Amino acid sequence: MKDKKLIFVSNDDGIDAPGLKKLIDMVRPYGEVFVVAPEHGQSGMSHSISLLKPLRTKTYLKEDGLTIIAVPGTPVDCVKLALNQLLPKKPDIMVSGINHGSNSAISVIYSGTMGAAIESGFYGIPSIGFSLLDYSKDADFDLAVKYSEKIFLHILENGLPEFVSLNVNFPAIKEKDFKGIKVCKQTQGVWKEEFEKRKDPYGFDYYWLTGEFHNFQPEDTETDEYALKNNYAAIVPVKIDFTDYSCLEKLKKIF
Amino acid sequence: MKDKKLIFVSNDDGIDAPGLKKLIDMVRPYGEVFVVAPEHGQSGMSHSISLLKPLRTKTYLKEDGLTIIAVPGTPVDCVKLALNQLLPKKPDIMVSGINHGSNSAISVIYSGTMGAAIESGFYGIPSIGFSLLDYSKDADFDLAVKYSEKIFLHILENGLPEFVSLNVNFPAIKEKDFKGIKVCKQTQGVWKEEFEKRKDPYGFDYYWLTGEFHNFQPEDTETDEYALKNNYAAIVPVKIDFTDYSCLEKLKKIF
Repeated sequence: MKDKKLIFVSNDDGIDAPGLKKLIDMVRPYGEVFVVAPEHGQSGMSHSISLLKPLRTKTYLKEDGLTIIAVPGTPVDCVKLALNQLLPKKPDIMVSGINHGSNSAISVIYSGTMGAAIESGFYGIPSIGFSLLDYSKDADFDLAVKYSEKIFLHILENGLPEFVSLNVNFPAIKEKDFKGIKVCKQTQGVWKEEFEKRKDPYGFDYYWLTGEFHNFQPEDTETDEYALKNNYAAIVPVKIDFTDYSCLEKLKKIF
Repeated sequence: MKDKKLIFVSNDDGIDAPGLKKLIDMVRPYGEVFVVAPEHGQSGMSHSISLLKPLRTKTYLKEDGLTIIAVPGTPVDCVKLALNQLLPKKPDIMVSGINHGSNSAISVIYSGTMGAAIESGFYGIPSIGFSLLDYSKDADFDLAVKYSEKIFLHILENGLPEFVSLNVNFPAIKEKDFKGIKVCKQTQGVWKEEFEKRKDPYGFDYYWLTGEFHNFQPEDTETDEYALKNNYAAIVPVKIDFTDYSCLEKLKKIF
């Protein structure tokens, strides 16, 4: 058992999300599984960290081959705490999800699922965020689980370049309609919001965030949005460098 | 007054942060100022958005040329709500900060100050995040204000390429030691955490996040960390594409 792989699992939908359970069940045959996940739903929490409050932990389960710990913090908090304090050693691989809802295109920047995977990648651990394009609690994860397993096993065997993580999104379709896995670039586009303005029972205004994605590259067949719309799963390799190099050269002439 | 510029101001340290006040005072001579900022400190909130709770607004001040509204949400919430609901028209420019503390290198991904500026950039508004490398509440903002004004005026006049924002960091030094403004790339590096483990009065463990930055490119003179260490202000032009294109080509041969 000395060579048993250590598999670190997290998510952003929280410790009781069905997608997390699916992911745990998927990876469990392949090693010792250590789950550190948010106690409550953390959708849209991006790469945020708790600077202003301390973190506690709650051990939910500890049995042969499986430990589950909840943290009342963000997905990135869970990763930092797991990798620095909670895990018995550096894990061989990290998986995040399976998220209930898409994290393709620019949604990657708002995503707690991908926040966790990207942060784990910063620690030199091959890390994958999995998402399914279905927000519902009783989403059908069969296709996502089957092909997540293929991707997981390949990365477990072969690793990833240092500090690179994967953003994997699955369409919400049945396997008979599935076209396969496609490696893609992140679609350029933005969310255009429409807030729903309501009045509370006391007469005060409040706003709910809603919106829709505007795709700037609807014809580009190399994007994750294109793949997903055409019944492929999309893998985008992710690395963090926010620098706009073309603008940098222009600005150098000014400042 | 028809041509008066509309200047949108936000931050992540919250509505009562001294750095915000400095920024408002700096931009006020140049147009109508509309502040929408978090009600409470939101350091480390990154690009997070409130999906699970609705947003309310509190008007703190409305006088000639200056409106201040607080939102009990994240910096990105403030931007979305401001640009979709609260501002009278699309602003000519957006400024975020002045942040108490650095947002250079990889800290840009955790930063609420930059979350706000980047989000505002998504709306096609020239947007700048300003930060000073001093966390203290009574930090000396004189140098940062003086050179923020120069950068602000240049961008107000000339704009920025669409969807590009600026990440501007100032060293915590006096003007006599200041070397000038340098356009830089984001330094590659990561935060290595050390959690402080404590016991609460009831005997339970809790953890405080601390850490230090590990610079992978200490000799690279083109980075923002190098500029700041050498008494320059650093401007990094920011654009969001998380795709790792070199890894993409490799993965295409596999999946």
